[in-house]
Amino acid sequence: MSSADEFDLIAALSRVHAGARTPELEVGIGDDAAVLALGDRLVWTVDAQVDHVHFERGWLSPEDMGFRAHAAATSDVYAMGANPIASLASYVLPRDDGAIAEAIARGSRASADRHGAHVIGGNLSSGSELSITTTVLGRCESPRLRSGARAGDGLYVAGPLGHAALGFRALRDGLRDPRFDPFVACWRRPLLPIDVRAAVVHASAAIDVSDGLAQDLGHLLAASGLGAELEAAALHDDDLARACHETPYAWLDLVLHGGEDYALVCASPSPLPGFRRMGTCTEDRGLRLRSTAGHLAVVAPQGHAHRL
Amino acid sequence: MSSADEFDLIAALSRVHAGARTPELEVGIGDDAAVLALGDRLVWTVDAQVDHVHFERGWLSPEDMGFRAHAAATSDVYAMGANPIASLASYVLPRDDGAIAEAIARGSRASADRHGAHVIGGNLSSGSELSITTTVLGRCESPRLRSGARAGDGLYVAGPLGHAALGFRALRDGLRDPRFDPFVACWRRPLLPIDVRAAVVHASAAIDVSDGLAQDLGHLLAASGLGAELEAAALHDDDLARACHETPYAWLDLVLHGGEDYALVCASPSPLPGFRRMGTCTEDRGLRLRSTAGHLAVVAPQGHAHRL
Repeated sequence: MSSADEFDLIAALSRVHAGARTPELEVGIGDDAAVLALGDRLVWTVDAQVDHVHFERGWLSPEDMGFRAHAAATSDVYAMGANPIASLASYVLPRDDGAIAEAIARGSRASADRHGAHVIGGNLSSGSELSITTTVLGRCESPRLRSGARAGDGLYVAGPLGHAALGFRALRDGLRDPRFDPFVACWRRPLLPIDVRAAVVHASAAIDVSDGLAQDLGHLLAASGLGAELEAAALHDDDLARACHETPYAWLDLVLHGGEDYALVCASPSPLPGFRRMGTCTEDRGLRLRSTAGHLAVVAPQGHAHRL
Repeated sequence: MSSADEFDLIAALSRVHAGARTPELEVGIGDDAAVLALGDRLVWTVDAQVDHVHFERGWLSPEDMGFRAHAAATSDVYAMGANPIASLASYVLPRDDGAIAEAIARGSRASADRHGAHVIGGNLSSGSELSITTTVLGRCESPRLRSGARAGDGLYVAGPLGHAALGFRALRDGLRDPRFDPFVACWRRPLLPIDVRAAVVHASAAIDVSDGLAQDLGHLLAASGLGAELEAAALHDDDLARACHETPYAWLDLVLHGGEDYALVCASPSPLPGFRRMGTCTEDRGLRLRSTAGHLAVVAPQGHAHRL
């Protein structure tokens, strides 16, 4: 489905579930994960990776599928400023695919060994279409929501932007040039920027980039009632620009609209260790990009559609 | 996949995830749900309902799909002697099925209104095959595991056995006799025996019946290192027997091997309020059925395959 349809649907489903009597509930539908007040704050999310939608079998190994699925779900917990506790994995497997489930699980294990959130249970079902649904619990003292940014806050990012998107396009378009290999690796096995996780609690707002910087930053800004100005110079990425040379891909398009980066984006009044600054939150709504020559251009909020 | 393949696969996946360093983990793969020690004990489960596997569209409304999916997942939390806290719902929807998502959510809401575990978040994805994955958190002071039964414990059940299985067969085989209607309703909207939930904490072991009494009780007995003797007279169900008259279905087969009842089965040294006694745990392994005439027959452990 298109992003617009998906958001309409999310809004509709939010209305259906509105007013749920869960006394522990602090944050429900609409942020990266739900928050329950229980001892510490528990942060809880679920994410699905579906064959022919998020990937094609020929593009990655079953281990990569498991790694991707686990990392993508865990990213939402880091984006709340929380530490992952554990996860459950639910697989839908075509009849002939029982053999790859163990390889998928090995990939999830590899992600859990790196990112935390070890798989402590799950579910198996038959189905015609392979999918991996991962639910992750995390905890924190004070979750970082999308809505906490203030005008004047700096915008910070940790993790590469656009790299996974270039890898995805190289796979989709059948380009076999070895210069794309590191970018393909980024897409197959997202390495979350866990070395900066302690800094997220100092942010005023946070989100992870799964659908592209413009779209996900747009969510953060909308939730905070703000706009932003990004600096093109700060978004420039030499490795990415070089790899895009003589391809139909524009590095800046990949950075802004590529998606599946699982980078962390924060708003903060002061610098965050391990993050690089890319712009500033503004009272004026909308997202604008300032060129190195000082010209401002409007950035459309569209992102990556997750539909091959 | 067959049940045998599924259990092999679960064993294989357990090995992959063995030794996970989750200090809060008290019970991992192999019971109805995982247990985390966090404040109270948190109980956490995930379950999937897949089109053409667990149901066919013509058999139930989208609201029923949502109710079924939510109730089936929540049943695992009650089977731990825990109280549901909340749930997340992840939908995979074919492109043209966005419109039914809201109806599915309404069904989940109806189940949550009755059973607890309100939906507080989730995920949406495209896919060729509709599926609903529900993850539920619950809490309790002391979870009731499968492994706690002792020889001499009585075996107790709450909720009808075989009713949903008769409804399933009537739908599958296209029988439109109105005498099947109440059984079809049981299959479409499982009503968990929540009025007896307070008694479960007094049980020595508990499990819910999703794959048929023989198979699920077999899991409880295997985990406890026991066998059991069931009384045919105690399993007799007048309504079910009457509805099976002049059909190819045998009421006792439905009771023992039918599945999708979401009844609660407990072992306990003393009677449990709201439960009916159906047999006794024995040192001798295996499951046996004693006829009203006093003859013993071995009950095969096979259950319901969840593959249409």
